Amino acid sequence: MKVGFLGLGRMGSGIAANILKAGHDLAVWNRSREKAEPLVRSGAVLARTPREAADGRDIVITMLADDAALEQVLSGDNGLIAGLKANALHISMSTISVAAADSVAARHASQGQRFISACVFGRPDAAAAAKLFVVTAGDAADIARARPILEVVGQRVFEVGERPSHANLVKLCGNFTIMAAIEAMGEAMALAEKGGVKKAKLLEVLTGTLFDAPAYRTYGQILVNERFHPAGFAAPLGLKDMRLAGEAAYDTVTPMPLLSLLRDRLLETIAKEGPDIDWSGVGLTSARDAGL
Amino acid sequence: MKVGFLGLGRMGSGIAANILKAGHDLAVWNRSREKAEPLVRSGAVLARTPREAADGRDIVITMLADDAALEQVLSGDNGLIAGLKANALHISMSTISVAAADSVAARHASQGQRFISACVFGRPDAAAAAKLFVVTAGDAADIARARPILEVVGQRVFEVGERPSHANLVKLCGNFTIMAAIEAMGEAMALAEKGGVKKAKLLEVLTGTLFDAPAYRTYGQILVNERFHPAGFAAPLGLKDMRLAGEAAYDTVTPMPLLSLLRDRLLETIAKEGPDIDWSGVGLTSARDAGL
Amino acid sequence: MKVGFLGLGRMGSGIAANILKAGHDLAVWNRSREKAEPLVRSGAVLARTPREAADGRDIVITMLADDAALEQVLSGDNGLIAGLKANALHISMSTISVAAADSVAARHASQGQRFISACVFGRPDAAAAAKLFVVTAGDAADIARARPILEVVGQRVFEVGERPSHANLVKLCGNFTIMAAIEAMGEAMALAEKGGVKKAKLLEVLTGTLFDAPAYRTYGQILVNERFHPAGFAAPLGLKDMRLAGEAAYDTVTPMPLLSLLRDRLLETIAKEGPDIDWSGVGLTSARDAGL
Amino acid sequence: MKVGFLGLGRMGSGIAANILKAGHDLAVWNRSREKAEPLVRSGAVLARTPREAADGRDIVITMLADDAALEQVLSGDNGLIAGLKANALHISMSTISVAAADSVAARHASQGQRFISACVFGRPDAAAAAKLFVVTAGDAADIARARPILEVVGQRVFEVGERPSHANLVKLCGNFTIMAAIEAMGEAMALAEKGGVKKAKLLEVLTGTLFDAPAYRTYGQILVNERFHPAGFAAPLGLKDMRLAGEAAYDTVTPMPLLSLLRDRLLETIAKEGPDIDWSGVGLTSARDAGL
Repeated sequence: MKVGFLGLGRMGSGIAANILKAGHDLAVWNRSREKAEPLVRSGAVLARTPREAADGRDIVITMLADDAALEQVLSGDNGLIAGLKANALHISMSTISVAAADSVAARHASQGQRFISACVFGRPDAAAAAKLFVVTAGDAADIARARPILEVVGQRVFEVGERPSHANLVKLCGNFTIMAAIEAMGEAMALAEKGGVKKAKLLEVLTGTLFDAPAYRTYGQILVNERFHPAGFAAPLGLKDMRLAGEAAYDTVTPMPLLSLLRDRLLETIAKEGPDIDWSGVGLTSARDAGL
Repeated sequence: MKVGFLGLGRMGSGIAANILKAGHDLAVWNRSREKAEPLVRSGAVLARTPREAADGRDIVITMLADDAALEQVLSGDNGLIAGLKANALHISMSTISVAAADSVAARHASQGQRFISACVFGRPDAAAAAKLFVVTAGDAADIARARPILEVVGQRVFEVGERPSHANLVKLCGNFTIMAAIEAMGEAMALAEKGGVKKAKLLEVLTGTLFDAPAYRTYGQILVNERFHPAGFAAPLGLKDMRLAGEAAYDTVTPMPLLSLLRDRLLETIAKEGPDIDWSGVGLTSARDAGL
Repeated sequence: MKVGFLGLGRMGSGIAANILKAGHDLAVWNRSREKAEPLVRSGAVLARTPREAADGRDIVITMLADDAALEQVLSGDNGLIAGLKANALHISMSTISVAAADSVAARHASQGQRFISACVFGRPDAAAAAKLFVVTAGDAADIARARPILEVVGQRVFEVGERPSHANLVKLCGNFTIMAAIEAMGEAMALAEKGGVKKAKLLEVLTGTLFDAPAYRTYGQILVNERFHPAGFAAPLGLKDMRLAGEAAYDTVTPMPLLSLLRDRLLETIAKEGPDIDWSGVGLTSARDAGL
Repeated sequence: MKVGFLGLGRMGSGIAANILKAGHDLAVWNRSREKAEPLVRSGAVLARTPREAADGRDIVITMLADDAALEQVLSGDNGLIAGLKANALHISMSTISVAAADSVAARHASQGQRFISACVFGRPDAAAAAKLFVVTAGDAADIARARPILEVVGQRVFEVGERPSHANLVKLCGNFTIMAAIEAMGEAMALAEKGGVKKAKLLEVLTGTLFDAPAYRTYGQILVNERFHPAGFAAPLGLKDMRLAGEAAYDTVTPMPLLSLLRDRLLETIAKEGPDIDWSGVGLTSARDAGL
């Protein structure tokens, strides 16, 4: 297939490499050109603008930082929308707001273009190893068309609804649930430690019984070792996702007190520890607030 | 070994049966005698008082409802303490407060008796099937002595500290972490549903990715099916455990905002739905508070 | 002075009337013309566009619903900015976001126009009676110029800083503090009532001792009488202000757990009672969550 | 009247002095005798035990630290209950739990003795100046009998219910409302300061508009000046009162999320700043959590 790929950050470059490896004809674009070079050396075509990356492609994928970055890539004379042919498919992999996904969907529809969301769970190493989890939503025919690509980048694909933004909503719910698990472990470890129990012991019990899952094993280990730097996923990114979840909650009139709590914990952590800390640094805040 | 067992509720009767099956000489006592009968028919000796159940035993196990029930069994002329011989071991399996465990430990010590806590994770069916997880703490020699019994009732034994109450603290931390996971799923499902995503879809993604663990599978399924009655673990029991965790937090000066939130959610659920609802009924509260 | 006034809602029409009464030459504009008619009959000039209302005026005042309404009035060929002469002063009285106020300030500055914020506390009857409290911020010379107008509409003028948006921040802090007082009374009344104490008795003690202030007397009376309809200040407006305060907290990295709690309480109230309820309806939510 | 007074701390000694000044025949008792001496020099009789202080008295007043201190004074051969004659009246002024007040009421009733609660708002200087606010509850005839004494110690007496513990509940609600006001100001000031607005300016607006009440003027000034030492009312005492309110909420199944938040803020403040800080030190926590 003729595929375009926009956004070659730590996640995007791994994903794009896997698409290329699978034998697709790939055009790539990135704001700063250097990041495109390894892919070009492996056979990808360098596009000078988003429009060029979309031009003549069956499928174009975006993996960008946020709503604003996506907006910039979409619009204008050199934008993705201007370049995409009728009926071609835009797959948005970025963690953007539900409202932004709805708005992008409407804009493509008005141009006779197709659009789905396909959000991913996993970190850069999982992206490189094609071990991502992909959560997708949109028209069934569009998803069917995207499947060969999605299966190349992930270990499993979940279809969660017919509206593209449903995938974004599920992604935000997922990150909320991770953050909640981290906060729970952080508070429990602070209590354990103040009561004389070793954090590692508590984690051993949790992951050895009802919480034998990656979220608890991975973040539990970070909390036990207080290895908050370098950040695997920085606190301000976590905060951004909690804010997006909060906007969806606000727009749908859904009270979420635990979400609100997490937002404040991240704000406190960033205010006191600086922005370079991992989002699991809320556990450090639990410890410090307890005088540890 | 000569073992005594006090407290034959849904958990205790399963545990006691497994000890008997393993070939130990077992004396049993329960406040209401009927519950002891099946065990007596299987070969256990019926004790008429806690004292009698402790008399001449190497190990005596208590599995009672709360601090007050344990206190009643321990004290007085017919109490466990009066009956227990010097150097015999009392294993407390009840979910009691950290402070109560510390106080019981001190009382036994002053009588030359031994004491450890061995709290369990698992529901009555797990107790019957000897599949409990056992969390124990206390003097290493006492735990070594208790091991043959603990291994008969559980699938795995965790040692978490030298002070018996450390096991109680870890048990409370565990129940807090479960309740937090339930609340997180409940809020996420309310948001998903208000946004048009099916709860079952969200759960499929969570348990299929980072949350592939019993706590999420079991309670997630209850939340999806809204099967809050009959209660597997009633909300007032969950509330009791959150209160005990809160007392430990208070006594050790540990702020735990998520714990506080969970306590209020359980109160709200009980106030609106009555006390017979499962503790996962907080998910119903998330839905109702969102107008669902 | 030659004054323009844009936004003749319940607050704006009272304020504009007082400016007219004080003898100023007043041009008025409102999106729907009918609301301007009483003022025109009293001697105001009807402007057909925001630009016309600003044209040739020394001072132009805006009192609009939100950021978006202000943006619409400011921009474009028929907008306020296009009409305002160099060095003329725009006084923004709307409850808008801190970020919007900063942005408007910058736009005026780039046109050689002057800008201050002058937010008000008080309800429509206070606006009509010239009994508002005015909180203003900006360049001292601009405030001095605005004073004759501000003193005509309010009973007292507070200067809180040199950056116009400082007034907006203080206004949001004020509404947050009111909402917090309402929540506190609502929770306390729920506890009192469940414990057998009459709400009116509790309020009598509060306002008779340490809380003898309008916020407690006014909203306490509404809570005691459960007079949440018609809304004096509707819950969605309160929610909007809490959201704006939350954005300021987010932008300045300030954790505010009480603010977050209030936002969720308003969401819950709107989700369950509908949008027409007064913002003090959070007290109803406290009662209902307690099973009352 | 023949009056007994037990508990001569900072509050009690001021109250007792006013009763003596009013011409009553006063017997006094305190755990450490020195504190009784100034009163004895002024004409009070020194009692060596609580029983002696109650013996032959019409009215006995207790002003003690907490439930445990009251219990110690009441019970035993040398206790108040043993000394109080039939039909004599015990007035409890201590800030004790609702449950303790109910239990004390029942014990007196079983002895044919009378009991009311009469809680006070005000600090030691107000006690000395007879400017306390008194909140009383109980049988109307008992209150009528107590009135001459209550009016001697306070500037105003509120009757809030027929069950003595109703006064305790109202007292706890009052302290909760104060703590909520402090937290609201603390968070608002942190936001203001991070946004560039002086805390004193914000307070001037609040107390100059809708919050012109002692709670805001007094604590607002402490927050502006960061004068948290020496503690007028130490954080652990505030925490104790929030805990007692929480127990009442728990017993009556009343969710109070704001109360929970306040409890955690006090815990955080004590954990980080030590126990000697004023309860308004939660404002310092708001500032520090925001990185100030």
